[in-house]
Amino acid sequence: MKEPRYLILADHDFGVMTSKTANSVIRYHPTRVVAVLDRLLAGQTAQQVLGFGGDIPVVASVGEGLALGANAILIGIAPQGGRLPDEWRDWLRQALEAGCDIVSGLHTFLADDPLLAETAREHHCTITDARKPPTDIPVATGLARDVAALVVLTVGTDCNVGKMTAQLQLVQQLNARGLRTRFVATGQTGIMIEGWGIAVDAVVADFIAGAAEQLVLRGSKGADVVLVEGQGSINHPGYSGVTLGLLHGACPDAMILCHQPTREYLGDYREASWMKIPPLAEYVRLYETAGSAVHPTRVIGIALNTYDLDAAAARAACDAAARETGLPATDPVRFDPGPLVDAIVKRRDERRETRDEKSCAP
Amino acid sequence: MKEPRYLILADHDFGVMTSKTANSVIRYHPTRVVAVLDRLLAGQTAQQVLGFGGDIPVVASVGEGLALGANAILIGIAPQGGRLPDEWRDWLRQALEAGCDIVSGLHTFLADDPLLAETAREHHCTITDARKPPTDIPVATGLARDVAALVVLTVGTDCNVGKMTAQLQLVQQLNARGLRTRFVATGQTGIMIEGWGIAVDAVVADFIAGAAEQLVLRGSKGADVVLVEGQGSINHPGYSGVTLGLLHGACPDAMILCHQPTREYLGDYREASWMKIPPLAEYVRLYETAGSAVHPTRVIGIALNTYDLDAAAARAACDAAARETGLPATDPVRFDPGPLVDAIVKRRDERRETRDEKSCAP
Repeated sequence: MKEPRYLILADHDFGVMTSKTANSVIRYHPTRVVAVLDRLLAGQTAQQVLGFGGDIPVVASVGEGLALGANAILIGIAPQGGRLPDEWRDWLRQALEAGCDIVSGLHTFLADDPLLAETAREHHCTITDARKPPTDIPVATGLARDVAALVVLTVGTDCNVGKMTAQLQLVQQLNARGLRTRFVATGQTGIMIEGWGIAVDAVVADFIAGAAEQLVLRGSKGADVVLVEGQGSINHPGYSGVTLGLLHGACPDAMILCHQPTREYLGDYREASWMKIPPLAEYVRLYETAGSAVHPTRVIGIALNTYDLDAAAARAACDAAARETGLPATDPVRFDPGPLVDAIVKRRDERRETRDEKSCAP
Repeated sequence: MKEPRYLILADHDFGVMTSKTANSVIRYHPTRVVAVLDRLLAGQTAQQVLGFGGDIPVVASVGEGLALGANAILIGIAPQGGRLPDEWRDWLRQALEAGCDIVSGLHTFLADDPLLAETAREHHCTITDARKPPTDIPVATGLARDVAALVVLTVGTDCNVGKMTAQLQLVQQLNARGLRTRFVATGQTGIMIEGWGIAVDAVVADFIAGAAEQLVLRGSKGADVVLVEGQGSINHPGYSGVTLGLLHGACPDAMILCHQPTREYLGDYREASWMKIPPLAEYVRLYETAGSAVHPTRVIGIALNTYDLDAAAARAACDAAARETGLPATDPVRFDPGPLVDAIVKRRDERRETRDEKSCAP
């Protein structure tokens, strides 16, 4: 595969919460991004829209992206309504005809679109649907509990609170402390960033835990610490099944609880809101109870997403979370992720001692 | 659709635990079953093999079943290995050529088999894959919590402990008490018995709760009580995601905990066994904690599956379960289901009082 130089399609969506894929790819792989297509923001830069991403320009057409050297199209979140609008299909055809590959995180698989598939074949381009799961996932049988690496799972108070980003922010410091650390992607954005993974919410229900188990088995090879991207929330009326299947399949030794302090209701930016988010301590109890039903686990820290607070309010939110739970709390994007790194190192030392004791037992 | 007269395919499998579909269809619709195909037991009757089912004969070939008047083939659980053996495919083709429809609960969809699909078309027969989910299931948003009917979900200590059968045993007595009661099927066997439903373990993970929600919304129309078939177990390493998604999508007001007293380990008849089944009181805590995170719910009774105990031991097991949990406990197949029916009626009265109070509040 050629080194990608992406034009990211985020029309009408860039810089808002639903453009998670665009934002994250720009944050972690800015050199792979040539431009972002959003007709509403054309003329600005990623830095101006997101506060990071430097000079990456926002353009108004596929043609401009191609002129800037794009050799691949990246589509993150679906446009409103979920279906691919005809206009977008035209853009994709234009890009394929110019020799671009397509990487998509949409629920609808683009490789199954006859017109796009045919155009891709004609022009020797690939269409990669990041959410398309492998067909040979087994039912989980608890194998992940035996891996030598420490397995850390992010869990959340809701969807889209920063469970992937929290893990990605920890990798560097853990490696710097001499722990070989691997991030394991369980959603389309993580897969696009890391280059492998399984979108666990896209597999058939019987195989959620099996997918998580396979990911941990692969990710733990040669690693001291495995950071598994969490999904959904244990009390989310729509997605909790994915959350628990992932928790039981991954068998984490430790969990980091992620939360956005300004959010009051589950899913409040998108769906009908009726469920008030309970206190963090209640989530700690829920996740530890549910997780330990299969493999002993506990919450070791809190990762807050304070992007919509000023610095003083963000600090205060971290202090309040730490007081409420008795656990280290930080915003690992905005502040030093060190407290969470410390908690992981400490948990790993504890687990090694326990395992050593066990192996020395008469 | 013509009234089915089934030949049930259960070769090498009839009368053992994995022939759940065959057993249940014979238990609840004996008049629809013409014969069972099992070459190892040919010559016996269902009564001799199962202890119920009367004179339904076990035969050794499709031809014998056709001669007895079969106009449809029913396949429950997959033969060992899960794949459809060539021999079975030949049987199915023979049946289709004789004008039989096929109803299948296999994971592999028979309607997708080109040879069988073509043969069915030629002979104007239908192939129904009971596990094939609809394609338009929405993500759940908690709508099931508002239905007027009392929603009762069976939950279990493991897979295959009697969660469907417990519900089916309660329908008649509840109707006899004047409560319009509907069974809601969430797995292939229940769907074959009831004629509608969704196999919630076969939907894409994001839509488990959505499927449960749709089923409860449909099942509750004109009903006083909805009995939802449970799936899996909250601490099953492979299937817990399905269990929690179903629990949060169905929003039950009450749960009945199902258990087989002789079982010591989760999944011990099939998969690698390593997880000891914890005490019933621990399951009550797990299900009430997890369920109430979305909608207030509690366990109101215990349904035991004592088929492999003698009568005295079965009685003793019910007494022990009642003592341990402080809840009514019975084997609703072997003994009177009355204690569970009483518990449902009581829970319904309580809920009506609470709702009345709420609606009278200033």
